[in-house]
Amino acid sequence: MRGAIHMLVTTRLSSSFRPILLDFVFPCSPPCNFSIPRRLICAAATKANGGGGGGRSGSIVAPPLLTQDEDFQKIDVNPPKGTRDFPPEDMRLRNWLFNHFKEVSRLFGYEEVDFPVLETEALFIRKAGEEIRDQLYCFEDRGNRRVALRPELTPSLARLVIQKGKSVSLPLKWFAVGQCWRYERMTRGRRREHYQWNMDIIGVPQVTAEAELISSIVTFFKRIGITQSDVGFKVSSRKVLQELLTKYGVPEDMFGRVCIIIDKIEKIPIDEIKKELGFTGISEDAIEQLLQVLSVKSLDDLEDILGGAGEAIADLKQLFSLAEMFGYSEWIQFDASVVRGLAYYTGIVFEGFDRKGKLRAICGGGRYDRLLSTYGGDDIPACGFGFGDAVIVELLKEKDLLPELGQQVENIVCALDKDLQGAAATVATALRDKGQTVDLVLESKPLKWVFKRAARVNARRLVLVGKTEWEDGSVSVKVLSSGEQFQVKLSDLE
Amino acid sequence: MRGAIHMLVTTRLSSSFRPILLDFVFPCSPPCNFSIPRRLICAAATKANGGGGGGRSGSIVAPPLLTQDEDFQKIDVNPPKGTRDFPPEDMRLRNWLFNHFKEVSRLFGYEEVDFPVLETEALFIRKAGEEIRDQLYCFEDRGNRRVALRPELTPSLARLVIQKGKSVSLPLKWFAVGQCWRYERMTRGRRREHYQWNMDIIGVPQVTAEAELISSIVTFFKRIGITQSDVGFKVSSRKVLQELLTKYGVPEDMFGRVCIIIDKIEKIPIDEIKKELGFTGISEDAIEQLLQVLSVKSLDDLEDILGGAGEAIADLKQLFSLAEMFGYSEWIQFDASVVRGLAYYTGIVFEGFDRKGKLRAICGGGRYDRLLSTYGGDDIPACGFGFGDAVIVELLKEKDLLPELGQQVENIVCALDKDLQGAAATVATALRDKGQTVDLVLESKPLKWVFKRAARVNARRLVLVGKTEWEDGSVSVKVLSSGEQFQVKLSDLE
Repeated sequence: MRGAIHMLVTTRLSSSFRPILLDFVFPCSPPCNFSIPRRLICAAATKANGGGGGGRSGSIVAPPLLTQDEDFQKIDVNPPKGTRDFPPEDMRLRNWLFNHFKEVSRLFGYEEVDFPVLETEALFIRKAGEEIRDQLYCFEDRGNRRVALRPELTPSLARLVIQKGKSVSLPLKWFAVGQCWRYERMTRGRRREHYQWNMDIIGVPQVTAEAELISSIVTFFKRIGITQSDVGFKVSSRKVLQELLTKYGVPEDMFGRVCIIIDKIEKIPIDEIKKELGFTGISEDAIEQLLQVLSVKSLDDLEDILGGAGEAIADLKQLFSLAEMFGYSEWIQFDASVVRGLAYYTGIVFEGFDRKGKLRAICGGGRYDRLLSTYGGDDIPACGFGFGDAVIVELLKEKDLLPELGQQVENIVCALDKDLQGAAATVATALRDKGQTVDLVLESKPLKWVFKRAARVNARRLVLVGKTEWEDGSVSVKVLSSGEQFQVKLSDLE
Repeated sequence: MRGAIHMLVTTRLSSSFRPILLDFVFPCSPPCNFSIPRRLICAAATKANGGGGGGRSGSIVAPPLLTQDEDFQKIDVNPPKGTRDFPPEDMRLRNWLFNHFKEVSRLFGYEEVDFPVLETEALFIRKAGEEIRDQLYCFEDRGNRRVALRPELTPSLARLVIQKGKSVSLPLKWFAVGQCWRYERMTRGRRREHYQWNMDIIGVPQVTAEAELISSIVTFFKRIGITQSDVGFKVSSRKVLQELLTKYGVPEDMFGRVCIIIDKIEKIPIDEIKKELGFTGISEDAIEQLLQVLSVKSLDDLEDILGGAGEAIADLKQLFSLAEMFGYSEWIQFDASVVRGLAYYTGIVFEGFDRKGKLRAICGGGRYDRLLSTYGGDDIPACGFGFGDAVIVELLKEKDLLPELGQQVENIVCALDKDLQGAAATVATALRDKGQTVDLVLESKPLKWVFKRAARVNARRLVLVGKTEWEDGSVSVKVLSSGEQFQVKLSDLE
């Protein structure tokens, strides 16, 4: 609550006087050089909305930070709720994972890009009622701009593609690994930030693009030891729904909204789904048929329902045929219930799932051919996926596939005498100049301590700088794995 | 202004009725499911502060986003003011730079860490009036917590060290490369975010630590082609000032504040400096002497003034002696005017500068032995530096040392016939399985287009999948540098 101004808001439009305490926030807190009133009493008229409540009065409250001048008290040593520190052991895992993301992307010829983690809020506001929008981590900055910590990377990518315009040659094949934020209630240990690996293809209308994207994820899985018996991909196309909705006369601009509702099928009661679908103007009959089609798990059955002439069937057939040629047909299956929870998808959609059914979707993606025009750009066919860093680590843990990653240095260099610390520095520099990693002992420590540290950092060799040897330009080397020990001139030390 | 609620605030405590229009911001904008009044008129009593002004009335204003349901208009395709996109060409430079940061850190045996980019605001609020504090990018989140985008990494590191407590063995040698934010006026093209490379040593009280930190920066400079004739390090110690202030009877708790004032010497007029120093209780005489000492550029002269017995002189002498043994004594020089702008430094301070004097400091750091106790932890001796990604790139540009970094893939694979796209996928997969990078042409394109793309992605080979060869399990390969062309069985293609 530090830095907030408590305002007593009273209801003028409601019949009873009912004070509501709200916390209004300044674009920035008082110490940030804003001209704001030091003391503020506010009596406001408002339509009572049932929020807030409570009757705190005595409402002359000074902004705490303005007058703050005391020394700091003990701070909370944990990172803010829902966020993570990455101490070395966690950072090693993160680097291991990200390196696989990046190496696979490069193997497929994709170029790395990034965007600001703080974007204009408008970039993420769509009218479809997505979960991602309701959980936007948004603020107003000191220039009165509505900004948000990005909940996903695709809108920024679309923005950049529009900005680049004709200066780039299509297709673009881009990847990114970036932190994304969502403000959700902290249940079940879900976090408010995660890192997401994205690969996107801009400028290819054919299903070859989606097929390659899935191929890259399969390649990633294989590299980290995940097999087709651990995970699979459910694949469908938004065109299935679109063809059905057209059949039922549902207006095209309701399409995104219907998809979002259908994506909630396993999350909220089916009656709620039906009610929400009803609001969009779909008849009860149509809703029943729609829900039936969504349970279809075979492409042949779908073809019986939709007929063979539509794009949905054609796209899906091509995808399955390409999957065979890419070599991952055992990994994918048709599932009409997959629509994904983002409003902008227009064609093939897919999600990676664990076959034990214990975890949330591991990754998800699809085609979004019309996203650019919602931002005022010319549409370019596009598709991509997002792959978070949370569920995959849960899966690796479960399969006991998390790698053992210790620190590793080649040399630990130590002076045997305080006067030789400069000499040890010279030795460390010589080794580093040769490209050897060196942990230099910076204090005078007993040998026992040095051996303990050498073990902890997994040093390959211990290089000791002693008086007699150093006078001769030599050092003692102990190979820690074998115990082998020898003296060598510094210039000969490789 | 989207999502803000305009409130008409009137002065009750001032004699004249003078409406002030303020923008109050909700912890989140209305669409984010907060219970807030839809319409709000607020008449507030406030001590007039001269801020705001204007007389906008008609103050029943609906929060714009609540009723928003229209399609999106053209958005701003630029990233938010002061932030950057990283299209591939910029990302390659960023990766090149960061890889050098990381490789040097590992060469020195440091472990990588990271912290949340969004931290509790309290972590960064110190009472010394630092520039960094005045430019805090701060917000209130939806849980009414004061948070800030980190302006630097050291406070988070200190927080994590306290949290880890006795579970870690000292010394810690940690590095991080993370994005930092500061909300400053957008003059002279300065940005609101930059990436910073930090290296820190926790648990070493001796100057060997600072000496190694500077050695790592020198190693970095050398790797990227920057020499001692391009840059240098100015070195001093906060203990110089401390010994002077003790001499003048200035209370110890004014120390941080005095350092911040002195750090502004080249940024604001000297009379302003003197005035500010006067406020801290230093006599006019003492201020004059202080400013004289700060102009000292030789350690011998400083010793004449301070005498030889103090820690300041001893530390600095040791540092210069170690610099020689590390092999970078030509890079560093004593300069009493260096104090650095962060309140928490306690000992050696240093900054990297370009010898032409055109740029801001390239990097800076020092010892901060008492930071942990300001957060309620037990103090542990510590030192570190921050090295931003902005000034170094300016310097590299100026020296014409920016690397040429193009995209690079080993193969571009293309079907000569639409029906062979599946076959091309098989070829791409086979090559990728062998670790070869492949840009797969995902559409049916004329050969001319393919050659153009091959040139753009710097492909080493063009692999063509034609009908006749494929029936035989073969492909055509053209080595693009030599023009050499041959047919090969896919299984033999390395």
